[in-house]
Amino acid sequence: MKIGILTGGGDCPGLNAVIRAVVRKGIFHYNDQFVGFLEGWRGVQENMMRPLDMEAVAGILPRGGTILRSSRTNPAKKERGLEQCIENLNNNGIEALVVLGGDDTQSVSQKLFEGGVKVVAVPKTIDNDLSGTDFCFGFDTAVMIATEAIDRVHTTAEAHNRVIVVEVMGRDSGWIAIYSGIAGGADVILIPERPFDIDDVADVLKHRHDRGRFFSVVVVAEGAKMARGTGSGSLVTETDQVDDFGHVRLGGIGNMLAREIEQRTGFETRAVVLGHIQRGGSPTAFDRMLATRYGVGAIDLVHEGKFGNMVVLRGNAIQSIPIIEAISKTSYVSQELIDVALSLQDRRGEERGGLKAAPHQR
Amino acid sequence: MKIGILTGGGDCPGLNAVIRAVVRKGIFHYNDQFVGFLEGWRGVQENMMRPLDMEAVAGILPRGGTILRSSRTNPAKKERGLEQCIENLNNNGIEALVVLGGDDTQSVSQKLFEGGVKVVAVPKTIDNDLSGTDFCFGFDTAVMIATEAIDRVHTTAEAHNRVIVVEVMGRDSGWIAIYSGIAGGADVILIPERPFDIDDVADVLKHRHDRGRFFSVVVVAEGAKMARGTGSGSLVTETDQVDDFGHVRLGGIGNMLAREIEQRTGFETRAVVLGHIQRGGSPTAFDRMLATRYGVGAIDLVHEGKFGNMVVLRGNAIQSIPIIEAISKTSYVSQELIDVALSLQDRRGEERGGLKAAPHQR
Amino acid sequence: MKIGILTGGGDCPGLNAVIRAVVRKGIFHYNDQFVGFLEGWRGVQENMMRPLDMEAVAGILPRGGTILRSSRTNPAKKERGLEQCIENLNNNGIEALVVLGGDDTQSVSQKLFEGGVKVVAVPKTIDNDLSGTDFCFGFDTAVMIATEAIDRVHTTAEAHNRVIVVEVMGRDSGWIAIYSGIAGGADVILIPERPFDIDDVADVLKHRHDRGRFFSVVVVAEGAKMARGTGSGSLVTETDQVDDFGHVRLGGIGNMLAREIEQRTGFETRAVVLGHIQRGGSPTAFDRMLATRYGVGAIDLVHEGKFGNMVVLRGNAIQSIPIIEAISKTSYVSQELIDVALSLQDRRGEERGGLKAAPHQR
Amino acid sequence: MKIGILTGGGDCPGLNAVIRAVVRKGIFHYNDQFVGFLEGWRGVQENMMRPLDMEAVAGILPRGGTILRSSRTNPAKKERGLEQCIENLNNNGIEALVVLGGDDTQSVSQKLFEGGVKVVAVPKTIDNDLSGTDFCFGFDTAVMIATEAIDRVHTTAEAHNRVIVVEVMGRDSGWIAIYSGIAGGADVILIPERPFDIDDVADVLKHRHDRGRFFSVVVVAEGAKMARGTGSGSLVTETDQVDDFGHVRLGGIGNMLAREIEQRTGFETRAVVLGHIQRGGSPTAFDRMLATRYGVGAIDLVHEGKFGNMVVLRGNAIQSIPIIEAISKTSYVSQELIDVALSLQDRRGEERGGLKAAPHQR
Repeated sequence: MKIGILTGGGDCPGLNAVIRAVVRKGIFHYNDQFVGFLEGWRGVQENMMRPLDMEAVAGILPRGGTILRSSRTNPAKKERGLEQCIENLNNNGIEALVVLGGDDTQSVSQKLFEGGVKVVAVPKTIDNDLSGTDFCFGFDTAVMIATEAIDRVHTTAEAHNRVIVVEVMGRDSGWIAIYSGIAGGADVILIPERPFDIDDVADVLKHRHDRGRFFSVVVVAEGAKMARGTGSGSLVTETDQVDDFGHVRLGGIGNMLAREIEQRTGFETRAVVLGHIQRGGSPTAFDRMLATRYGVGAIDLVHEGKFGNMVVLRGNAIQSIPIIEAISKTSYVSQELIDVALSLQDRRGEERGGLKAAPHQR
Repeated sequence: MKIGILTGGGDCPGLNAVIRAVVRKGIFHYNDQFVGFLEGWRGVQENMMRPLDMEAVAGILPRGGTILRSSRTNPAKKERGLEQCIENLNNNGIEALVVLGGDDTQSVSQKLFEGGVKVVAVPKTIDNDLSGTDFCFGFDTAVMIATEAIDRVHTTAEAHNRVIVVEVMGRDSGWIAIYSGIAGGADVILIPERPFDIDDVADVLKHRHDRGRFFSVVVVAEGAKMARGTGSGSLVTETDQVDDFGHVRLGGIGNMLAREIEQRTGFETRAVVLGHIQRGGSPTAFDRMLATRYGVGAIDLVHEGKFGNMVVLRGNAIQSIPIIEAISKTSYVSQELIDVALSLQDRRGEERGGLKAAPHQR
Repeated sequence: MKIGILTGGGDCPGLNAVIRAVVRKGIFHYNDQFVGFLEGWRGVQENMMRPLDMEAVAGILPRGGTILRSSRTNPAKKERGLEQCIENLNNNGIEALVVLGGDDTQSVSQKLFEGGVKVVAVPKTIDNDLSGTDFCFGFDTAVMIATEAIDRVHTTAEAHNRVIVVEVMGRDSGWIAIYSGIAGGADVILIPERPFDIDDVADVLKHRHDRGRFFSVVVVAEGAKMARGTGSGSLVTETDQVDDFGHVRLGGIGNMLAREIEQRTGFETRAVVLGHIQRGGSPTAFDRMLATRYGVGAIDLVHEGKFGNMVVLRGNAIQSIPIIEAISKTSYVSQELIDVALSLQDRRGEERGGLKAAPHQR
Repeated sequence: MKIGILTGGGDCPGLNAVIRAVVRKGIFHYNDQFVGFLEGWRGVQENMMRPLDMEAVAGILPRGGTILRSSRTNPAKKERGLEQCIENLNNNGIEALVVLGGDDTQSVSQKLFEGGVKVVAVPKTIDNDLSGTDFCFGFDTAVMIATEAIDRVHTTAEAHNRVIVVEVMGRDSGWIAIYSGIAGGADVILIPERPFDIDDVADVLKHRHDRGRFFSVVVVAEGAKMARGTGSGSLVTETDQVDDFGHVRLGGIGNMLAREIEQRTGFETRAVVLGHIQRGGSPTAFDRMLATRYGVGAIDLVHEGKFGNMVVLRGNAIQSIPIIEAISKTSYVSQELIDVALSLQDRRGEERGGLKAAPHQR
């Protein structure tokens, strides 16, 4: 078969490992031919492509980014965009399409599938919040980078009796924050799933200080929000600022939180915003394995004729579900993990009336 | 409650993270008191212990090894060993025991449990071959270290047109080999589950060479074996050598394999034996999270009165099973992973009559 | 002898390695006794101290931060501060003092030395800009972390056809920027030593784009400045904002530069501000070696009676100079390194009239 | 100019960084054209080459190995080998040659230079033992890898009350051993420069054990030797075994030493042989910087007409010396570093009559 591949949306460590697995198994076992469309759906719409043979995928397993580049182009939002895609696929003799991407990218896959295109999907979200799959590649790498950063700031926080706030990725869900926060031994973890009370955060830190621990580390997901009717009000206004500059917001949650904590506790507080380093570089072994299994699973789906489906990880098994199920809802941090985070936190303050509730338990 | 903790058998990155989680949740939520027995069962038998308070577990989350040290002492193999343990536990007022260890260590837990001791178990095996749980902490760290080593030897193998054999841990099962082999893009992976034919290995490497890839990386588990009746008889004799020196055998499988490959292919071949660096150092974020969840699960089991049980990971959930179920059999590499490894391998040689079967498919 | 040790100013990977070397050689070879003053000069002024024996320094070699903690307390700025220090040193029977710190900390060392205290100094500046010594420990670690971050953003910049600006430490000098920029293959490097013209920066990036390289990485030292009379006046105003929040400025140079580049080139541009992760965590082997040599050198100076001196690295030799020489001026990036950075940059644009000068050559 | 480049001898992290710097500065500043000869001198002798343009060197800065591959082919040892090289260089219009290599490779450079070829040399030795230059690229990376391994075995040695012997590279000189040993906090360091007495080694370890430190780490260079007339005699015989298999000797010094230590002390002892992982993978920032400076220096030498010279690092300056000076003798570990290592070792045993001399001071 002649098969197209593309990568859409934000890049993720492991995309190249998926591409390599699809191409190797396709060539070795199914005698397929491959074409890579460049820059996501833009490549399909504008006929930008390159052949993908064994040579093209040699040595790419450990590399971050994507050799096909990516973009957020969405043909469904352009007039005749989808028709254009279908025409180009036909003109190029593409018999099936393997699409690596998240919600937005796969919504196009679904529409093209409904339009008759033979599409197979591979889930991609560094935030790990795509419903239907337990883990996405790239997530473990992001957690590793965030955990290393938390390890690093621990020593400097301790040396200076400081609070350090580490802002990690996670717009709608707190997977990276809760994983790296627990793995890094953070004292407070704030996630979008649980709007926080800034006064409670300050109380936890003061309580810890009273116990003789003069430094603290706070991990906050970029999408964490303050509960309405709590704290200083002014903070709410600031978080509502529209971010007209992109992913790393000027005056994002991390810096604001540091300021508010310093005001409320009097402890010297600093913020670190990890930003783009979380999504670059070589994937972890875990992510390379997961990406490879997804790639093998995807090319198998093609040859089993299971179009309109997405490979997913359930427990330890690679399975498949209809694309439409995957893109319908967000996956949130489980209650068990939230409980684990709370378990490790000193809540004895409650009895003393100091701490009314753990900060992310609201 | 007054609770004892011990770590037995070979050390694993994540032991300290388990200890910390048990102690923190125990103190914060259950008002427990903790005693650490030193050097595994030896500490129980010889009354070697230290108090474990908040201070004792501060800062140990990212550290390899175990603050309680370990040993392979097995009281069941000494006269009155078990009775001695029970007496000491009683004399010290220990109401429950949390035991971190593998097969051998937990067989003692089971016997003490049958003798009336309130024991809860946490699985530990860096080889990941303990039945009943999907993953053990330490495994991901070992895979990460092995994968980094494979990445490193790739560049030097390529620079010199060499074959490099990397020997990784795995006496009875090939989990580390298959994970690091797939993640590192190894050309051949040899695991204990599938005795190999040395001539087939040589054929795969020669076939790859014929395709213009002048270097190769072979990953072999320390316990991999050659199928009887294949290859050069002499190798069988050598692998049968009793290893009287311990884990890193003089003249182990890695060095032998390198010699045999060089003889059969004429390609310059070198071996690297990773040995003890695979089990030391700071655990990965994945392992710290898993270890922390095990620790929280174990102290919960104690307070739920579920003695004689072991915390396990099933899919993504922390559950528990009777200790006796866990220690009865070994967990082997799944067929799906073996298929993934084979998927990525060039098997087109078969049609040419060169390669009768992929090397680990026997 | 009874000897005091303290660490002042911002923390640096390697401080613990120095402390360990001083204490080990002192105890093993000179039969010294050690006291650690806590939180820099504050500990001397307020009599906060702890004994430093072999046990206290065991295992600290690979750890970031400082077991003595640090502060920016300057007794010379408090009434009777210096007298207080001298009294406390005398009352505690301290015969000599080993001081680890930068300009500000060592200016107190110098004053106390002039007041009769037997002081020996160890240079410390993560920015590597202390005159008199070729390298300070901590610098190599900071460069390593910055280079890893640059490696990571490279793959994501390439995947998305983006410009990514990485802001690294360096208030007065560009050592970290030039080292990590060259090591990470940055396309533009901006340092405090050479005020830049924002239009030139944009031209370099556009020129690179014209050559078919659709992504770029810009490394900027936090203290880099725009030349007066160039670019968009507004930027000058913004950089002039007083930073009332501390080291990681809201709206620092990195974010501003990203905005200005995007405006001028139309290329999607993002910023990453590394901040505190550059000074935390385990020191590199290079820094541990340098710190250990400094520690050995410092305790030797004490026993040679060379007070008022600082250990320094000249070429590959550990030597000593009067403290007063070291604190008098800043060390700037050498012309050779600036030339190396320029060497690797495509300047052929000049002939085409596009690029009048390399951006940091003004 | 039309310039050839080649890399000879064992590979080293940083070779690609040198190639990139030579080519970039050559193209951007001197308008040169480049050809890469493959597999060292073999490529020159057998006319194996590839063009080196900007595209060829894009993205290679952080990569280990060498894009030109390497070999130990020495044309001077083949009949008419040198003549053949000169003919091929002339036939291909090569006006100058930049040669990256160590002693053996550069001895050919010198002979060709004497035969009229315009050669410029870049030093390469991962062991750091090339006379004339203070540091070679690749060395810092090897030290980093060895130090990480020592860090890792520390935690497992401590958990099990073990001695662990780490064998690192260094045939004739102990640079890697002394650097990684000091940086990793090894308890004994054995280098080729100082033949050791095995009984002294055992005494140091027993003395440490008596002080209550139940684990130890020994770092040994692969070329370390036992002093004649000391120890068990049998060891001498074994170390004399000819290694017919290459770099990682079966039964090398590491494993033997472990066995001898266990016999003499009764402490459980294990060996780890790092081998080829020390020379692979991405170079450290330090090595990338040094390699880049060498590359820039080399192409400058070409255009200054300083043929027959090698770029070297003296203190912090890139300079040049005649090739013939560089290849005439080995550089050994300095007395200062040996003293630093001894400084940190507990020698108080001497007074007790136990330890007559530190182990590597014989």
